[in-house]
Amino acid sequence: MAAVAVATRWRLLLVLSAAELGVTGAPQPPNILLLLMDDMGWGDLGVYGEPSRETPNLDRMAAEGMLFPNFYTANPLCSPSRAALLTGRLPIRSGFYTTNGHARNGLRCSTAYTPQEIVGGIPDSELLLPALLKGAGYASKIVGKWHLGHRPQFHPLKHGFDEWFGSPNCHFGPYDDKTRPNIPVYRDQEMVGRFYEEFPINLKTGEANLTQIYLQEALEFIQRQQAAHRPFFLYWAVDATHAPVYASKPFLGTSQRGRYGDAVRELDDSVGRILHLLRDLGIAENTFVFFTSDNGAALISAPRQGRWPSRRGGSNGPFLCGKQTTFEGGMREPAIAWWPGHIPAGQVSHQLGSIMDLFTTSLSLAGLEPPRDRAIDGLDLLPTMLQGRLTDRPIFYYRGNTLMAVTLGQYKAHFWTWTNSWEEFKQGIDFCPGQNVSGVTTHSQEEHTKLPLIFHLGRDPGERFPLSIASIEYLDALRRITPVVQQHQEALVPGQPQLNVCNRAVMNWAPPGCEKLGKCLTPPESVPEKCSWPH
Amino acid sequence: MAAVAVATRWRLLLVLSAAELGVTGAPQPPNILLLLMDDMGWGDLGVYGEPSRETPNLDRMAAEGMLFPNFYTANPLCSPSRAALLTGRLPIRSGFYTTNGHARNGLRCSTAYTPQEIVGGIPDSELLLPALLKGAGYASKIVGKWHLGHRPQFHPLKHGFDEWFGSPNCHFGPYDDKTRPNIPVYRDQEMVGRFYEEFPINLKTGEANLTQIYLQEALEFIQRQQAAHRPFFLYWAVDATHAPVYASKPFLGTSQRGRYGDAVRELDDSVGRILHLLRDLGIAENTFVFFTSDNGAALISAPRQGRWPSRRGGSNGPFLCGKQTTFEGGMREPAIAWWPGHIPAGQVSHQLGSIMDLFTTSLSLAGLEPPRDRAIDGLDLLPTMLQGRLTDRPIFYYRGNTLMAVTLGQYKAHFWTWTNSWEEFKQGIDFCPGQNVSGVTTHSQEEHTKLPLIFHLGRDPGERFPLSIASIEYLDALRRITPVVQQHQEALVPGQPQLNVCNRAVMNWAPPGCEKLGKCLTPPESVPEKCSWPH
Repeated sequence: MAAVAVATRWRLLLVLSAAELGVTGAPQPPNILLLLMDDMGWGDLGVYGEPSRETPNLDRMAAEGMLFPNFYTANPLCSPSRAALLTGRLPIRSGFYTTNGHARNGLRCSTAYTPQEIVGGIPDSELLLPALLKGAGYASKIVGKWHLGHRPQFHPLKHGFDEWFGSPNCHFGPYDDKTRPNIPVYRDQEMVGRFYEEFPINLKTGEANLTQIYLQEALEFIQRQQAAHRPFFLYWAVDATHAPVYASKPFLGTSQRGRYGDAVRELDDSVGRILHLLRDLGIAENTFVFFTSDNGAALISAPRQGRWPSRRGGSNGPFLCGKQTTFEGGMREPAIAWWPGHIPAGQVSHQLGSIMDLFTTSLSLAGLEPPRDRAIDGLDLLPTMLQGRLTDRPIFYYRGNTLMAVTLGQYKAHFWTWTNSWEEFKQGIDFCPGQNVSGVTTHSQEEHTKLPLIFHLGRDPGERFPLSIASIEYLDALRRITPVVQQHQEALVPGQPQLNVCNRAVMNWAPPGCEKLGKCLTPPESVPEKCSWPH
Repeated sequence: MAAVAVATRWRLLLVLSAAELGVTGAPQPPNILLLLMDDMGWGDLGVYGEPSRETPNLDRMAAEGMLFPNFYTANPLCSPSRAALLTGRLPIRSGFYTTNGHARNGLRCSTAYTPQEIVGGIPDSELLLPALLKGAGYASKIVGKWHLGHRPQFHPLKHGFDEWFGSPNCHFGPYDDKTRPNIPVYRDQEMVGRFYEEFPINLKTGEANLTQIYLQEALEFIQRQQAAHRPFFLYWAVDATHAPVYASKPFLGTSQRGRYGDAVRELDDSVGRILHLLRDLGIAENTFVFFTSDNGAALISAPRQGRWPSRRGGSNGPFLCGKQTTFEGGMREPAIAWWPGHIPAGQVSHQLGSIMDLFTTSLSLAGLEPPRDRAIDGLDLLPTMLQGRLTDRPIFYYRGNTLMAVTLGQYKAHFWTWTNSWEEFKQGIDFCPGQNVSGVTTHSQEEHTKLPLIFHLGRDPGERFPLSIASIEYLDALRRITPVVQQHQEALVPGQPQLNVCNRAVMNWAPPGCEKLGKCLTPPESVPEKCSWPH
C-alpha cells in the first residue's frame, strides 16, 4: 500500500482532472460518499417503480449513473448489514450474529425490543473501511446511526472514523430513563444530548428535524474537506425511514404515501442537495457516490391494524416479504452508483452486487488492496461500473449462523424457510402481510438442505413458484449451487458471536460526556443474561 | 366539426412545423398511433420497476415523453377493454358485458375456453374512433386482435377502419376444425389463412413470426400514409404476451424472464423500430403515440405447476392480483404518451387516466368533438399532457354489470369483492397466486355496498390494509365517494348485453374469403344457448 502504488494505480485507471490533484499536486483518489438508508425497500424509489414516484433526485441520480436491480444486503437486519458494509465480510465472520437459537436474527430494532442490553460490538480484530482508508490519506466521518456496539470501546472513533455525529442505536423511545435510558446523540467521542430530550421526535405528528441536521453535517464536512484539499470518506447513515418514521415540518404531509413517504421525500431532497453541492464545488467528477439501504422495507410496520409503533413501512416492489426474512424482499436493496465522467450515465447493471462490495470497491477507489489475512466477501465493482464487466458470484442469505439460502445467477435455493413462529404469527406479527405463500413463507423452521426450494428469480422474482424437483432445470441448478455452498461452508471460520449476551447495566446510562451535560444516569446492577431472540 | 373549426383549433394549440402541413398546405392534424398490448402488466416495463429491465425502447419512450403511473383499463378483460378504447365508453354502456350471472366477466380468453361461440359484437349504434376520425381526413388501420365480435357484421371495416391485418379472436388453438375451427387471420375484409395453419405458432418452442408480421404491417402503413401526406390512425393491437405466449426466433431464449420476457423484448424492440421510423421520416413531431395494455397481467398463467396452457404471465408490480379481477393488478396499466416537441420529455403525471381517454384525446388531437348524443366516459388528456393539468375524475371497476369498485383521488372503495369461486379455487385456479389477502381476495361474492372496503392507494398500493370503518379518514372518503357513485348509477343506461348468447354455429367456420382459399368448413346446426361464465 505504498504511496507510489496508489499513484500508479490511479494513472492507469483514470484520466485526471484538476479536481483530482491534491494540495501537493499529486493525484488524489476520489472522495467516497456512501448514502445508507434505514429499512428503505427496493420498491421505494420511482426508478424502481414506486407508483407515486416521489424521488426525483434519486431517479435523476440513477439516470446520471448506474442502477443495480440485483443488489443485496448481507443480512435482513440493520446491525449485521452495517457491520458487513464496513468490514467487507459476512456477519458470520465478524461476529454479528447469535447462537442463542437456531436461525435467529440479531440486534434487530424493528419491534418494541431495543438492543441497548447487548454487551457485544465490533471486535477490535475487525478492520473497518475508514481505518484502512487512512492509509490513503482520507478524512472520514459517519453521520447517523452506528449500530456496531454502543459501549465506548466499540464507538466509530475507536474504529477509524475521524468524526461522528449521530447515535449508537435506533431512535426508539421515549424511555423513562429509569428502566431504560433514552438513546444518546454523539458528536465525536462525547454525547451532546439524547433523543426525545435535546433531539426531539414527536411520535404523534412525526415531526423531527434530524434529517436536516444530518444533511447539514454532511454538507459542512464536504465543504471543509474540499477546502482542505483532502480526500474524504463520508458514511451518511440516516434513519428517517426506520420506525418511528419522521420528517421535518416542510415535508410532513407532502407525500401521497403518508408519513413514510414524507420521510422518503426529505431523504430524496437531501440527496439532491448533496449532489448539487458536489457539482457546485466542482468535485462531482472526483466523488464516488453510492446509494443503498441496510435491509428490505419492514412490512411489519406497514399500515395495518396492530400494536406496532408506527404501522408505516416502505415497499419491496414485486419481491416477497421484507426485513427480518431471507426472501428477496428482506435482502434485495435499491442501489445507485454515481460518479460523473467515470461511470457512464443511464446504465443498468445486472451484476449481483452486495453491500460488502462497497468495502472492496472503496478500497479500490483509494488505490488500496483489501486485507489479505482474512476472508473478504466483497467484490471490487469498479470493473462493473467503469467497463460494464459482469462477474459470477454467489449471494449468501443468513439468519444468525444458519445459511438460509443462496443465489447463483438467476437461481435461488432456500435451504431453510422461516418467517417467524406460529406463536408470533397468531398474535398478528406477520412479516409477509398479504403475501403468504404456502410451503414458502413457513412459520416453522423447515429444512430443505437436501432438496432446496429453488426459484428462478428472472421468471419469478416474487418467489412464488418453486421449480419442480423432478425437472432438469432443478437438477442443473442444484448441481451448480451445491459445490459453491460446500466450498463456502468448508472454508468458513465463524467469528466470536457478539449478540449472545445481554446486560441491562451496559445500556446508555452514562455515556462519555454525560458529566458535562449533567445527563448521567445510574446503571442497575450488572447481571449478564443470555439474550432471547424470538425471530 | 367543420374544417374551419379544425384548422382554428390547430392554430391555437400548436406551432406548426413543415411536417404538419398536408398536401394542400393546410394544417394537418397529428397522426395517432395507439400501441395496445395484450395481458401485459404494469410491472412488465423497466421504467415501472421490472427487475430484469429488458425494455430499453419503452423506457426511452417514457424518458422522452410522459409516464402515467395511475392509468386504468375499463375492464380486466381483453374484449370489453378494447370496446371501451374504441368507443370512449364503459362496456356497460356499449353492451360488452353479460347478465347471465352476477359479477361475471365476459368474452375473456385467458383460459381453455374461447369465445368463438359468442353471437354478439359491437352494435352498429356505437360510434368508433376510426369512423369519427374520417371526419378529419384520417386513414386508419388496425393491426392485430380485434375482439369486438368475429361475425362479419362486426368486423373493423364495418366500423370505420380502412384496413385490417389480424384476427378477430385470440390465438388459442390448435383446434381440430371439426368441433372448433382455428381462428382466421384477415387482410381487410377477407381471411388470408388461419392460426396454426398458414400462420404457425409452435406451442412447444413458442416460436411464431406474428410480431414481426404485425411490425411490418405497421411500418408499411406509416410509410404509405406519410408518402400520401395523409394523417393516419394506426391501432397496433399485438398479442404476443397473451397466452399462448410467443416470440420469433431471434428473440426466443434471450430474456432473463423466460418465454414471456422473450415476447416482451420483441414487442419492445418493435416499438423502438416504429418510433425510429417516425423520426427517420421526419414525422415524429407530428405523430402522437400512446402505449398501454388491455388489462393486467394474467397471473393465472404465471410459472406454476398446473394445467394452464402456458404458465407464463407478466408482472403487475406491487399491485394485487391480475387479469379477471378488479383489484389494481387487474386494472392498472402501463401507459406512456410520446409526442416530441409537444409533450415535454421526462414527465410523470399523476392524473387518473383511463383507456377510454384515448378515444376523447384522439378526437381532440384531430380537432374533433366527442359525440354529444351519448354518455362518453373518456377525458381529453391533452391539457394533462401539454400543460400538466390534473382533473379530478372517478375510475369505475366493473365485472359484468356489477360495479365492483371505484377510485376517487387516492381512495378506492370496493363494493363487492370476488376473485373466483371456491369450486374453481379448490381446483387450483388462482387469480392471486401467493397474494391472497384475508377478507379482500374473497372466493365468494361478498357485498360491501353499505360499508365498502376502502384503501388508500398511495400508502397501500397493494390493497392489503383496509381503512378502519371507525376512522375519520374512512368517513371522509366515503362521504366523497358516495355521491359520485350515486350520480353515476342514476344516470347509467346499460346497453343491450352482447355477451349473453352463444351458438356453436357462429364460430369461424366459413369466414369471408374462405372460398378462394378452399378453407371453408361446415358449421353445425344453429343452437342458440345461454353462455356460461364461471368467473
